[in-house]
Amino acid sequence: MKLNKVLDLSLYLVLDPILTEKIGMAETARLAVEGGATVVQLRAPQWKKRARYECALELKKVLEPYHIPLIIDDDVDVALACDADGVHVGQQDLPAHVAGQLLGQGKIIGLSVNNADQMKSVDPSIVNYVGVGPIFATSTKPDAQAPIGVNGLEQLMRICPVPAVAIGGIKSEHIEHIVKAGAQGVAVVSAICGQDQPKECARNLYSLWKLHSESK
Amino acid sequence: MKLNKVLDLSLYLVLDPILTEKIGMAETARLAVEGGATVVQLRAPQWKKRARYECALELKKVLEPYHIPLIIDDDVDVALACDADGVHVGQQDLPAHVAGQLLGQGKIIGLSVNNADQMKSVDPSIVNYVGVGPIFATSTKPDAQAPIGVNGLEQLMRICPVPAVAIGGIKSEHIEHIVKAGAQGVAVVSAICGQDQPKECARNLYSLWKLHSESK
Repeated sequence: MKLNKVLDLSLYLVLDPILTEKIGMAETARLAVEGGATVVQLRAPQWKKRARYECALELKKVLEPYHIPLIIDDDVDVALACDADGVHVGQQDLPAHVAGQLLGQGKIIGLSVNNADQMKSVDPSIVNYVGVGPIFATSTKPDAQAPIGVNGLEQLMRICPVPAVAIGGIKSEHIEHIVKAGAQGVAVVSAICGQDQPKECARNLYSLWKLHSESK
Repeated sequence: MKLNKVLDLSLYLVLDPILTEKIGMAETARLAVEGGATVVQLRAPQWKKRARYECALELKKVLEPYHIPLIIDDDVDVALACDADGVHVGQQDLPAHVAGQLLGQGKIIGLSVNNADQMKSVDPSIVNYVGVGPIFATSTKPDAQAPIGVNGLEQLMRICPVPAVAIGGIKSEHIEHIVKAGAQGVAVVSAICGQDQPKECARNLYSLWKLHSESK
């Protein structure tokens, strides 16, 4: 199934409303994309839906000129309302096939995967990418599962039927190992959100990703 | 705009996952409807969306034979996914017109209203009913506004452009006053959910509503 937008998972930014408080979600997204972020996800479970909807509209405006896909965490209704490029669902959110039916053709469906059973259930005719993790411990998602480590990622990548982005506590020094483990990209929150120089952080992460993935 | 289902607000049950723990949401709904409840709303903000979605599917099955509308709190995506009869949005959820556009024609849009400014903003071409309150203090919605009382309800009803259901701590002894204040129904949570005899409670509330509204 052809997607409306090219999905390059190399540097997948997950926005965090607390870490970005100083400059805001939209400005963080803009700077990160200027630096090389290839996907942006809006994730703000602590906000009411009106705030998520308004932020999504703002992000769409910011990202549109860059042709960078905007993914909405969990809320298929917000994704529909702002014509976002896709949704990301966890194992406790709407089932991926339901999200896909609601969003319609050409939109991106991402799914969080933490273990082999979940990976075996991924239907590549519905799910466009998986977020695999958490790789390391992280404070930005308090209800996260136990970290699976780079070894866990490597094992899951062997049975992964779709492109995968590794997530959870990933910093620049881990990128080489994530590339080697077979993922198609890294998802970061605190490595960009709340940093003094989000653009430079994104540029550094993206350069490292390119360096290691091209020399693989 | 014609609704797919008749909207009788007389006795509007808002399900609560904690209070209904003993017999479950679906069985509470079934008993309440047997007793006279005319609308059922699924409201479980403390649950993950998968649980709300699965509960909605179950409720739809239970309510279908009774032709009682199922309204989903907040989640337009869940309402779409289970083909519910409508959604209820608060002032911090998706805007009513956005919810209405997503749900499509014939579906019910309810909106929470707490004060005159909010009431004046109600667009009767979009909103099918308002939930006015809280009338009294209530423990089932920890983030509720200050109670407006029966006097507050009466004042808001004078400028209310659509049918209204009063909500917030309403018990059987209040029904006469709610009718006199001009509302078209009462919404209850704890007056049915978690009661030993939900069916009898519903029957009693519905009878009182009929008694007072017919003698008005």
